[in-house]
Amino acid sequence: MAERLSAEARQQALGGLPGWTDVQGRDAIGKTFVFKDFNEAFGFMARAALVAEKMDHHPEWRNVYKTVEVVLSTHDAGGVTARDIALAKAMNAIAG
Amino acid sequence: MAERLSAEARQQALGGLPGWTDVQGRDAIGKTFVFKDFNEAFGFMARAALVAEKMDHHPEWRNVYKTVEVVLSTHDAGGVTARDIALAKAMNAIAG
Repeated sequence: MAERLSAEARQQALGGLPGWTDVQGRDAIGKTFVFKDFNEAFGFMARAALVAEKMDHHPEWRNVYKTVEVVLSTHDAGGVTARDIALAKAMNAIAG
Repeated sequence: MAERLSAEARQQALGGLPGWTDVQGRDAIGKTFVFKDFNEAFGFMARAALVAEKMDHHPEWRNVYKTVEVVLSTHDAGGVTARDIALAKAMNAIAG
């Protein structure tokens, strides 16, 4: 099972993940992606869903038209792990 | 442009939409769909997204693993219209 990242490791990882920040009041990281329209927003979600399913690690996310708010945390570990960092990185790559 | 439904028309419409209820504190209707797993939940979202795009009427929705919380309202009309009822009906049909 993945272990929670130390505060130091987490900050270092966030430094390499543009747009991702700590989520207030939770042991989680989050990012709000804004696209051109729903087509692009859902296209992003579809590609990210395939990656998430392959990783067997799934996001919490909310979509309103062209916006996708993502929160990542590892339930089993009770906080942010390397799996969240990997998924965040993949999402940034998909969003371009 | 679609007009807001009267309270009566809305209650009548909700009566024919299993699982859909008024959203507290908002002029909107909502439903939480629960599926077997992420694969089924996102499969539902993908099908609903195609319908929404075709209708040019989009949901607010949040997905956490096997759960999809949907809120429907018509921004332009400032409340629930026939377009929301139509999308809700389509979502119920997709979810089976």
